[in-house]
Amino acid sequence: MAPSATTDLSVAAPKFADEVRLFAQEDDKTVDRFLREFRCLIADLVQQFGGGHPGSAMGMAAIGLSLWRYTMKFSPTNPSFFNRDRFVLSNGHTCLFQYAFLHLTGYEQMTMDQLKSYHSARYDSFAPGHPEIEHEGIEVTTGPLGQGVANAVGLAMATKSLAATYNKPGFDLVNNTTYVMIGDACPQEGVFQEAVDLAGHWKLNNLVMIYDNNQITCDGSVDMCSIEDLNARMRANGWNVIDVLDGNYDVEGIIKALQQAKASTEKPTFINVRTTIGIGSKVAGDAKAHGAAFGVDEVRNVKAKFSMNPDEHFVVSDEVYNIFADLKTRGQKLEQDWNALVADYAKEYPELHKEFIARVEGRFTQDWRSIIPSKDSFPTTPTPSRKSAGLVCNPLAAKLTNMMVGTADLSPSVNMAWKDKVDFQHPDLRTTAGINGTYQGRYIHWGIREHAMASISNGLAAYQKGTILPVTSSFFMFYIYAAPGVRMGALQHLQQIHIATHDSIGTGEDGPTHQPIALPALYRAMPNILYIRPCDSEETAGAFIAALEATNSPSIISLSRQNLEQFPQHSSRDGVLRGAYVFIEEADADVTLIGVGAEMAFAVKTREVLAEKFGIKARVVSFPCQRLFEAQPAEYKRETLRYRSNAPRVVIEAYAVNGWERYADAGYSMSTFGKSLPGKDAYEFFGFNGEKIAPQVAKLVEDVRRDGIESLRGEFRDLNTPPANH
Amino acid sequence: MAPSATTDLSVAAPKFADEVRLFAQEDDKTVDRFLREFRCLIADLVQQFGGGHPGSAMGMAAIGLSLWRYTMKFSPTNPSFFNRDRFVLSNGHTCLFQYAFLHLTGYEQMTMDQLKSYHSARYDSFAPGHPEIEHEGIEVTTGPLGQGVANAVGLAMATKSLAATYNKPGFDLVNNTTYVMIGDACPQEGVFQEAVDLAGHWKLNNLVMIYDNNQITCDGSVDMCSIEDLNARMRANGWNVIDVLDGNYDVEGIIKALQQAKASTEKPTFINVRTTIGIGSKVAGDAKAHGAAFGVDEVRNVKAKFSMNPDEHFVVSDEVYNIFADLKTRGQKLEQDWNALVADYAKEYPELHKEFIARVEGRFTQDWRSIIPSKDSFPTTPTPSRKSAGLVCNPLAAKLTNMMVGTADLSPSVNMAWKDKVDFQHPDLRTTAGINGTYQGRYIHWGIREHAMASISNGLAAYQKGTILPVTSSFFMFYIYAAPGVRMGALQHLQQIHIATHDSIGTGEDGPTHQPIALPALYRAMPNILYIRPCDSEETAGAFIAALEATNSPSIISLSRQNLEQFPQHSSRDGVLRGAYVFIEEADADVTLIGVGAEMAFAVKTREVLAEKFGIKARVVSFPCQRLFEAQPAEYKRETLRYRSNAPRVVIEAYAVNGWERYADAGYSMSTFGKSLPGKDAYEFFGFNGEKIAPQVAKLVEDVRRDGIESLRGEFRDLNTPPANH
Repeated sequence: MAPSATTDLSVAAPKFADEVRLFAQEDDKTVDRFLREFRCLIADLVQQFGGGHPGSAMGMAAIGLSLWRYTMKFSPTNPSFFNRDRFVLSNGHTCLFQYAFLHLTGYEQMTMDQLKSYHSARYDSFAPGHPEIEHEGIEVTTGPLGQGVANAVGLAMATKSLAATYNKPGFDLVNNTTYVMIGDACPQEGVFQEAVDLAGHWKLNNLVMIYDNNQITCDGSVDMCSIEDLNARMRANGWNVIDVLDGNYDVEGIIKALQQAKASTEKPTFINVRTTIGIGSKVAGDAKAHGAAFGVDEVRNVKAKFSMNPDEHFVVSDEVYNIFADLKTRGQKLEQDWNALVADYAKEYPELHKEFIARVEGRFTQDWRSIIPSKDSFPTTPTPSRKSAGLVCNPLAAKLTNMMVGTADLSPSVNMAWKDKVDFQHPDLRTTAGINGTYQGRYIHWGIREHAMASISNGLAAYQKGTILPVTSSFFMFYIYAAPGVRMGALQHLQQIHIATHDSIGTGEDGPTHQPIALPALYRAMPNILYIRPCDSEETAGAFIAALEATNSPSIISLSRQNLEQFPQHSSRDGVLRGAYVFIEEADADVTLIGVGAEMAFAVKTREVLAEKFGIKARVVSFPCQRLFEAQPAEYKRETLRYRSNAPRVVIEAYAVNGWERYADAGYSMSTFGKSLPGKDAYEFFGFNGEKIAPQVAKLVEDVRRDGIESLRGEFRDLNTPPANH
Repeated sequence: MAPSATTDLSVAAPKFADEVRLFAQEDDKTVDRFLREFRCLIADLVQQFGGGHPGSAMGMAAIGLSLWRYTMKFSPTNPSFFNRDRFVLSNGHTCLFQYAFLHLTGYEQMTMDQLKSYHSARYDSFAPGHPEIEHEGIEVTTGPLGQGVANAVGLAMATKSLAATYNKPGFDLVNNTTYVMIGDACPQEGVFQEAVDLAGHWKLNNLVMIYDNNQITCDGSVDMCSIEDLNARMRANGWNVIDVLDGNYDVEGIIKALQQAKASTEKPTFINVRTTIGIGSKVAGDAKAHGAAFGVDEVRNVKAKFSMNPDEHFVVSDEVYNIFADLKTRGQKLEQDWNALVADYAKEYPELHKEFIARVEGRFTQDWRSIIPSKDSFPTTPTPSRKSAGLVCNPLAAKLTNMMVGTADLSPSVNMAWKDKVDFQHPDLRTTAGINGTYQGRYIHWGIREHAMASISNGLAAYQKGTILPVTSSFFMFYIYAAPGVRMGALQHLQQIHIATHDSIGTGEDGPTHQPIALPALYRAMPNILYIRPCDSEETAGAFIAALEATNSPSIISLSRQNLEQFPQHSSRDGVLRGAYVFIEEADADVTLIGVGAEMAFAVKTREVLAEKFGIKARVVSFPCQRLFEAQPAEYKRETLRYRSNAPRVVIEAYAVNGWERYADAGYSMSTFGKSLPGKDAYEFFGFNGEKIAPQVAKLVEDVRRDGIESLRGEFRDLNTPPANH
């Protein structure tokens, strides 16, 4: 539907800005020429591959010019200039839009040859089907819709956090703006709402969202599935709203809106720009312009319509290149000025400068290894591993200013709040709501927004590699809500730590909706992430060490709600770093029991019962992390699991067994959803009890004695069966 | 923050309603007594277990009375009365609220003894930690926040769909209302926004949301993480908004608001009810009242405050029971009247009646088996399996009126739209937006809202078992957004079919963000769901047969974007029903190749190369569904995979291999995220090519010849390695 179309009065019109003056100096004909050439260039690039997304990129030409030429601060010759403005293309399928501007503004990687590699079979392309963080000028990998907005919120938070921590009067070391571009899809995704609510709450006035409002998605008009007044929703979430009614051609209007946005002191800004998808083509304004090449003839028609020569391809005239010609030197000047400012800052604030530089260079501000508690500092009485995690993480969070630690509304449960922690909040909340927080605060109340928590954390981590280490937390089960964001963190090699408490059926009476069964299989299979399930406090320390060492990967530390027996005689942080290790050795064992995380005590108890009642010797292996184990030398793996022995290996874990078949011949596991019972009783109901497990293992050992170990080859045994009527 | 607090004028105040008159007849003292007893009962129930969620349930007492006593139509003696009003507790942790009303209103299952089993160790409890669909009076299982709202949207859609299809003048066979209760958490979850936008779009005036607005979540005040004006957001999404300022005591005000909601003709209604969490306790209005027992002393204080005897527990006086005494007979009367109406309808509309009864009884309206295309009707030229799925599903959807088929904005890609399909839309859209649709339409444009698509579909499926069969569709990768809803469908045993196209790296140039690697591991490990990957059209037919036969499970049919070779000589729909089957037999094979879905052609090609270049004999097994295979007899499994032979088994699939170790000794698979390349080139880049696979398999066969098959035991071989620098 038509949005309510008045510009918010809350944004004071800025004085006639330099950028608008700059625009006024351009010849109207030059701007016109740019728009025509840009749109034909996009049509050509999609046509040469015979597929891709031309329509929105063409519609957004004026927006792009307004941003890259007249608004954003960046340095094409140093794409990682620390204080650059960040740009996020949340409608990532329109990537040609961004690639074309990277080319025009002089990013070295994005040659015309590279631009032409869009969607091609070239292995060395810098122009993939969606923007990827590995390439120059790309801040985050986008594609899964809605998440780019959350990433941008994270980037803007990072600026606020760094500015509050390091800026001083006369020293605006960090003051960049984050711009995020969306199409009609992003606002429909739930994560968008989660993110914009938080951005409004935190009053991130350094965040500008530009809406390419062409009212078209794959299926057709947005009218088919939404009557929403998006402007009103954005206002309800605490955003300024500015309308630009002719986004196809009104470059000056867009520039002015962007200037108004920069002048906002209290709110993030949403610029609603009406455009026409596939402008200039016969499918303009139609879903057909979204995701397919126009065809050779129609590309010719588009060129004719834009007074371009239909026989010429990939035309960028010198006149158009000239528009962007000074951006390299302007960028170098920005860098020089900033470097000079930082040098002066070093003299005034030497200590802060030292810490700031560590963060600019992506180093931890302290030696974290010395902060990890020693084994003998942990209680030896039964302790929930979520509590152990607090014992390890709280001192780290208190001292490492890189860390920003948050929770999806589970502060009382996850134990991530440290003494004297200060919340990340707009300081106004002190007076309006009596809540103590500042932008310097590093404890984040995400609300009940798991997907945004993970996706915004990706933005925090992407600000500059190593500058911020986000720590998220929730119940493990709700990392299924967060999964799209967690995956994108792994895909982008962004270090972060996800604290996933209340794992397994041991979480108890909240019932099957809260008891993860299959989710571990996702995270164990996911590339480039460590899913670590420590069995006690010592292993929890090991899990944090592994997560901190993994500077190119996120980690999930999976923790119990309930008390866990401590095994100081057996457990080892170094063992965790190897993924699996011998927990209790037994020279001529009949069976190897694999114990995991919260269920380790069942493995140890089973061993006892096997010895006492069945005369069977069992050794126990602790196996907190499959991915870390895979990285070990073959010999270590063989020795740990005794591949070549005649002793079968049995894994005991209250999850779906899928994936354990690589390391075990049999499993005592879960094959149904859980049940609402107190944790101890839930375990009992599903047969997790050494007295019940041992006879099943004993039977397996007997079978092997009778039929030989080779009888197990290829026939994994499920030793546990779900209770009747369940 | 304080919401904008004016009641919408768009809701005409109804005439003095029966329900308000009924309320007026109750003695004020009786209502007061009810509120006092109810709140103390909740405090007692939580205290006896020593944990649980007392605060909100106490705060919602007046809301519950207004709903169960004065508003909702239901029949306690027949909880599945077809035209009952549906109630969904989206804030499922407050389940005691619902359980207590089920007890008071006379649901047989919910005795006082059962009520006391809340959170207990009793295996036979009907009072689990969150409401579960298995139990009387519970429409959907809730707990994962936000999803209950989407479920309720589905229930309300079901009513609209059935009413538009079967109601006739004088015959309002289906006209029930759906009520959904939320707390402060649900609106923060993204799925809430996705669902309310759709409900507003569809003008579901039979949907009423009641907001237990106590401004408290686990971490404290909502002010910590939101400044949103929720009323304004709801209005922006096309909802009526009604405020009730004293939700603790103003029963009459709540009843009137519910009556106003029922009078709405054009919009769903949001009733914003201010309450006090933990009312009557010393932690009233505080997060401490949310998720813990008050303690013995404080429960005594609460009772004293409410003028109850602190020494008495679980008190429900006759006076309070009497308030609800006539609900059983009233419910029976509702049923009798409805049955009479249906009987009259049978005379007037015999054909429609027959179909209606089939749906009431949860049967398909036609013999679906006869609609499935035969093998010889399929093209033998290469065909994308997403196209095959259209060939199978389109005629089913056209004829089976049980089916409601939707897509998350990918109509042009997923091939689920059948000829002459009509959209599910409010008919007004014809005039306002020129979009052809009615409430009778069975094609759903979900927009770009995968999580809501799955969660609303759970509501459609839960309306009454078998009445509606929802079919969802999107790219497989985006079933990671939908995963929380898909899981809840499996947990609730709700039959539905998820059409997941563009699976594997074969989806091509959209790149790694769109290429699933780990997601299959989640769905293969998830209890009670079939993840089926057919290799050609014939197997796609088999996948639909399996999905339609699985009346207690959802299924995911995983399909290719790209053309797939057809194997009419080998492929078998019956084979799909067994999960795996011999595709190409070879009597004295050296190796068994397991081919899966879109990668089957690589297995077949590898077999050829092995024969031609290495003189190695390979047999091929097609393995579309692990879960179905697990259900086969041991003998069938052994014969299919030749467990006891000396031939190793190699699975070839472009996913993470995790879980295949159960069936294979080695895998040719993916261990990194994908890459943006055209599908064919993506396969090539990652080594999926018979010429590249065959030598790796040949080496394995040689190793086995030399070292014996037992050398493989416990050492799964990864035959593929990721390309360098990837």
